[in-house]
Amino acid sequence: MATQTGIQVEQWRALAQQLRVDSIRSSTQAGSGHPTSSLSAADLLAVLVSDHLRYDFNDPGNPRNDHLIFSKGHASPLLYALYRAVGAVSDEEMLTFRKFGSRLQGHPTPLIPWVDVATGSLGQGLPIGVGIALAGKYLDHLPYRVWVLLGDSEMAEGSVWEAFDKASHYGLNNLVGILDMNRLGQRGETDLGWNSAAYTARARAFGWHVIEIDGHDLARIDRALTEATQSREIPTLIVAKTLKGRGVSFLENKDGWHGKALSAQQAQQAIEELGGIHLVSVQVNKPDGIPTEAPRADFSAAPTPALPSYEVGSAVATRKAYGDALAALGTTRPDLVVLDAEVSNSTFSDEFKKVFPDRFFEMYIAEQQMVAAAVGMSVRHRVAFASTFAAFLSRAYDFIRMAAVSRANLRLCGSHAGVSIGEDGPSQMALEDLAMMRAIHGSTVLYPCDPNQTAQLVAAMADLPGISFLRTTRGNTTVIYRPDESFTIGGSKVVRQSTNDQVAVIAAGITLHEALKAADQLQAEGIGVRVIDAYSVKPIDASSLHNAARATSGRLVVVEDHWPEGGLGAAVEEAFTLDAGWNNSVQIKLTHLSVTDMPGSGTPQELIDAAGISARHIASAVRRIIAV
Amino acid sequence: MATQTGIQVEQWRALAQQLRVDSIRSSTQAGSGHPTSSLSAADLLAVLVSDHLRYDFNDPGNPRNDHLIFSKGHASPLLYALYRAVGAVSDEEMLTFRKFGSRLQGHPTPLIPWVDVATGSLGQGLPIGVGIALAGKYLDHLPYRVWVLLGDSEMAEGSVWEAFDKASHYGLNNLVGILDMNRLGQRGETDLGWNSAAYTARARAFGWHVIEIDGHDLARIDRALTEATQSREIPTLIVAKTLKGRGVSFLENKDGWHGKALSAQQAQQAIEELGGIHLVSVQVNKPDGIPTEAPRADFSAAPTPALPSYEVGSAVATRKAYGDALAALGTTRPDLVVLDAEVSNSTFSDEFKKVFPDRFFEMYIAEQQMVAAAVGMSVRHRVAFASTFAAFLSRAYDFIRMAAVSRANLRLCGSHAGVSIGEDGPSQMALEDLAMMRAIHGSTVLYPCDPNQTAQLVAAMADLPGISFLRTTRGNTTVIYRPDESFTIGGSKVVRQSTNDQVAVIAAGITLHEALKAADQLQAEGIGVRVIDAYSVKPIDASSLHNAARATSGRLVVVEDHWPEGGLGAAVEEAFTLDAGWNNSVQIKLTHLSVTDMPGSGTPQELIDAAGISARHIASAVRRIIAV
Repeated sequence: MATQTGIQVEQWRALAQQLRVDSIRSSTQAGSGHPTSSLSAADLLAVLVSDHLRYDFNDPGNPRNDHLIFSKGHASPLLYALYRAVGAVSDEEMLTFRKFGSRLQGHPTPLIPWVDVATGSLGQGLPIGVGIALAGKYLDHLPYRVWVLLGDSEMAEGSVWEAFDKASHYGLNNLVGILDMNRLGQRGETDLGWNSAAYTARARAFGWHVIEIDGHDLARIDRALTEATQSREIPTLIVAKTLKGRGVSFLENKDGWHGKALSAQQAQQAIEELGGIHLVSVQVNKPDGIPTEAPRADFSAAPTPALPSYEVGSAVATRKAYGDALAALGTTRPDLVVLDAEVSNSTFSDEFKKVFPDRFFEMYIAEQQMVAAAVGMSVRHRVAFASTFAAFLSRAYDFIRMAAVSRANLRLCGSHAGVSIGEDGPSQMALEDLAMMRAIHGSTVLYPCDPNQTAQLVAAMADLPGISFLRTTRGNTTVIYRPDESFTIGGSKVVRQSTNDQVAVIAAGITLHEALKAADQLQAEGIGVRVIDAYSVKPIDASSLHNAARATSGRLVVVEDHWPEGGLGAAVEEAFTLDAGWNNSVQIKLTHLSVTDMPGSGTPQELIDAAGISARHIASAVRRIIAV
Repeated sequence: MATQTGIQVEQWRALAQQLRVDSIRSSTQAGSGHPTSSLSAADLLAVLVSDHLRYDFNDPGNPRNDHLIFSKGHASPLLYALYRAVGAVSDEEMLTFRKFGSRLQGHPTPLIPWVDVATGSLGQGLPIGVGIALAGKYLDHLPYRVWVLLGDSEMAEGSVWEAFDKASHYGLNNLVGILDMNRLGQRGETDLGWNSAAYTARARAFGWHVIEIDGHDLARIDRALTEATQSREIPTLIVAKTLKGRGVSFLENKDGWHGKALSAQQAQQAIEELGGIHLVSVQVNKPDGIPTEAPRADFSAAPTPALPSYEVGSAVATRKAYGDALAALGTTRPDLVVLDAEVSNSTFSDEFKKVFPDRFFEMYIAEQQMVAAAVGMSVRHRVAFASTFAAFLSRAYDFIRMAAVSRANLRLCGSHAGVSIGEDGPSQMALEDLAMMRAIHGSTVLYPCDPNQTAQLVAAMADLPGISFLRTTRGNTTVIYRPDESFTIGGSKVVRQSTNDQVAVIAAGITLHEALKAADQLQAEGIGVRVIDAYSVKPIDASSLHNAARATSGRLVVVEDHWPEGGLGAAVEEAFTLDAGWNNSVQIKLTHLSVTDMPGSGTPQELIDAAGISARHIASAVRRIIAV
C-alpha cells in the first residue's frame, strides 16, 4: 500500500491528467461521447489503478483478479484511457472509440476482455457488483474485491438501493462503491447536487461504511481506498465530491457539457491546460497468490443426474417439477446456484434450497437485484437460475435486456403464468411474459405442459448459453409424458394425430390440456385434429408446423394463455414467413385464440373459459376453420 | 380530531376486531386470500377511517376526498371489510370476494369506485401516491391527503425508495406512508424483520418525518396519525410494529400462514377469539369544504391549437416534433402535464417545460417513479405524457403493465429507437420497445417517420384513453408530409404507389425513409413498389395491408429497426390471420427485415446497413420475393 510521498502524488497526478487528455482525444476523434463525465472521475481512477486495484491484464480469466465495473458506463473514455495507460490497448486502438467495428463502443461491453458486464443503462453496475461480490464471498471464497464506479445521477434509480440493501444484508465487505458526485446530470443539477451528507446518511442507513472525500485530493483518495479495503464486515461507499469537466477551465463545473465531444480546437486548448499529451504508463498490481483455482471444470459434461419423474396420469404442477429438477441437478452440478425474490415456496425453488442452502440466495422482493445478482454470478461462471412470478419479471426487464448486451448466461423461471392462476387476479397473471422474453436477443423461451417435460427442459437450460426463460403454471396438470420421453430445445411434440387431420391445434402449457380435451370431443364428432405441443416457443419448431400445415391444407388454430401480441401465436406466424424457410406451397388459414379482455378473479377453469381459450372454444374454432 | 377517551378506544377496538372477523369471513368463504396480512393492519385502518380519513363514499369523485392506497394489495380482505363497515358494500357483496364476476377481486382494482389504482405488484402504491400527492400540491391546490398502506416485504423494492426520494424532493407533506411492519413475508422473515430502527433511519435519510409506534396501540396510532397531518414541509412515515395474524392465537406471529385462508372450522375458532360477528358501522368524515371544483372541463373538446409545422424537404427529428407539439398543446389543454426522467433535453420534452414549467415534473433517473407519477396524475384527471429513451422504459415495464390493470390513461414517449441512434451503442438502443408496448392490454403504439406526422399523433394521443406509446427517432429525418396532412390512430399512408405494384414494402419511422430510397432505385429498374407507412403499429391498418396484398399477389416486405419478435413484422403477420378478417383469397409471401445481430457503435447509416434494414437490403428483398 502506498505511503503518501510527494513523488507518489505527482505520479498519480500525471496519470490522472493523462487519463483526462486521452478521454478528450478519443471522444473528439469520435465526434461524440462523454469527456466531462470522465474528467470528474480521473483522479479517483488514477489512484485506484496505481495502488489498489489487483488485476492481471494479461490474464483476465485469473479468478483472483479484482473486478472493476463502470456503472456510469458513459465514462467509457476514461475506462479506455485507463486501458491504454496499463498497456492493454494501443493508442491507435483507443482512437477507434465509437467507430464501426471497434470493440471500444460508446458504452463498455464484454467484447472487451477486461469488462465483466455491459453498462450504460444506469443503476445496474452496483446490483451486478453485488452478484459478483456474493460469488466471491460465498462461492469462490477468493479475496478479490469488486470496485464499482457510480455516477450521482444514477443514485436516483431504485435498483441502486436494492443493491445497497442486499450488500449490507449479506455483509459484502469485498464490495466498494465509488460515487463520483460531480453534481451535474445530463440536463442540469442532479436530485441531490453536492449534498454529500444526504448520500452519506442514506448509505449509512442502508448499512454501509461511508467515507466522504474531496475526489480531487489524491492523497485523500488513497487513504479512502486504503480504508475501504480494511477489514470490516460491511461494504464501503466512498462519496467523492468532484467537478464535472475537472481540469479544463471552460468545462469545469459547467452545465450544458454532458455527452458532448470537444471540437478539435477546443480539444487542443483543453489538452494544453491539462499539460499536453504524455505517455505515462502504469503497472497494475497483480492479485496476491497464484491462481490456484483449477481450470473451470466443464460441468456440462457431467453425467446427467436422475431427474425427478412423475407417473403418467397423476397431476403435478410444472412449477413443482422446476424445483424438483433443480434439486436433482444440484447433485452433479456444483456450479448451479439458485436465486429467488421471496416467493421460493410458490416458484418451488425452495426444493433446491432445502438440499443446497449454501447455493441458494434469497433476494427478497427485489427482482432487479435478483436478475443482476444472477448476471454477476454468471461472470463468475455459475449456472444461475432465478425465479419469481412471471408477471414480476417484468420488473427486471431492463436488466434482462442488458444481460443480453452483456452476453450473459442467465436462466429465468416465471411461475403463475396466465389467467389460469385463478383467484389472485390480473396483477399476478403473466400475460405479456412470452412477448417480453421472446424480444430478448438470442433468448430461448420454453413453456412446458407436464412435469416430466419440465424436468428435462430445466436440465437442458443448465447447458444453454444466453438467456433462457421457463414459463411454469400454478395449478396441477395431468402428466402426459413418460419420464423417459426426451425434449430438445427447438423441438415440439405431436401429441394427437389421425390418419386424416383436418386442423392442427398448436398449444403449450396449460392450453395443451385444453387442446387435448377439444381433440377428444372432435374425434367423437369424426373430425381428425393434430395437436402440437409447442413447448419450445423460441426457437419454434418451424419444420413440425410446416408439416402440420401441409397435412391440414393450412388450417391452424393457435391457443395460448397470453395476450394476443408477441407470444406463441406470433411465433407460429413467424414460422410461415419466407425467412423461416416456408416454401409457401400451401395457403395458411390461421385462427388465434388468446386472452383479449382484462381478466378478473375466478376459478382457473372459469377464467380459461371466459378468456375463450378453453376446450369448447378450441373445438368451435376448429369447426369454424373447417367451414371457411 | 379525536381525544383519546376510553370510549373512543373501545369503538376503535370494536371496529378493528370486526375488520379482522370480516377479513377471515370473506377469505374463508373464497377459499383463498390473505387474512393474516389483513389482521396485522386492522388496528391502523380502524383508527384511520374512524377519525382521520376524509372521504365521501357517496361521492368518490369529490375532488377534496383523501386518497387511500393499499400498496400491500394482498390485504384486500381488510379493504373490503372496511368498505362494509362504512356501508359502501353489503355483507353479501363482501362475501363475493374472489368470485368470478365480483368486483372484489383478489387484489383491488379501480373497478371498485373507491379504489384509485390497481395494486398487487408490490412497491407500486407509494410511487403512485407520490403522483397523486404531486397533483394535490402543485396542480389541484387542494388539501386532500394521500394515505398509503405499505407492507414491510415491499420495502425491498427499489421503486419504494425512488418514491421516498421524490416525495421529499417535492416536499409532499400531503403524503403519509403507514408501514405495517409485521415481520413475516411470504416465506419467512423479511429482510429487516422488526428492525424498525433501520426503516426509520432509511426514511429519515431520505428526508421523511418518521414516527415509530406499536401498531396495535390504538391511542398511539391515533396520536401518530394526528402528528402525521400536522403542518410540516416533508412527508411522514409511520413505522408500525405489528403482529401478522394479530388477535388469533394460532395465527399471531406464526410463519407459514401467508396467503392462506382458514378452514371453516378454523375460521369459527378465530372469530370466537375475536369476539364474534358484529355489525359495527363507522361514519367516515367527509372532506372539509364544499366540492367547489367545477365539474372537470372536457378539454378534449377544446379547439386544437396550431400545431407546429415543418417544411416538406427539411430535416427535423421526430423527437423534436414531440416536444414542439406538447408545447403547442399546452396552450389549449390546461390538463396536460409532462414528466421526464432527466433526459428532457434528449426527448425534447423540455420544449414543454420552457413554456409551462409549472406543469413539468422532473423525475430524475427513476423511470418507475416517472410512470407511477403519471398514473397518479391520471387519477387526478390529468393528461400525463412521460418520456425517456425508449430503451429505459423497459425499466418501468411492470408499472406499465399494472397501469393497464388500473385502466389508467397514460401517454409514453420513448426516444432513441433502434440501431439508428448510432454511436452510443446497444445499451441505449430500444429494440424491444414495440414488442413490449404492443403486449400491454388495450395499448396504442405509434411510430412516426416525420415531424408533421408526429405532431398530429401527439395531439391524438392527448385524447386517447388507455395506454399509448410514441416511438421517436434520434436523428433528423426528411419531412415528407405536409403540415395539413391528417393521420388517424389505426390508419396508415400509402406513400408510393404505381400502376403495377409488384411488391408492397411496409415500414415505419426510420425504415420508411430507407423504403422510399429502395422504391426509387427499384422504380428505375422498372419494378413497381408500393410503400406503406404503418405509423400506427397498434392498431395496425389491416385493411390497407389487405389491399396491398391483393394488389401485389401477396408479396410483402416488412422492414423495421427492432428485433424480429413482436414488433411491426408481428403486427403485419397478425393482420393476415382469420381473426383479423383476412379473407384469405391471396396467398401471402412475406419477408421480414429486422435487427437480428447484437449491434455495436457506428454511424446511424453504418448500423442500419449492417443490420440489413437499409435501402439496399430492402431492394434486394424485393427482387428476391419477385423471384420466388
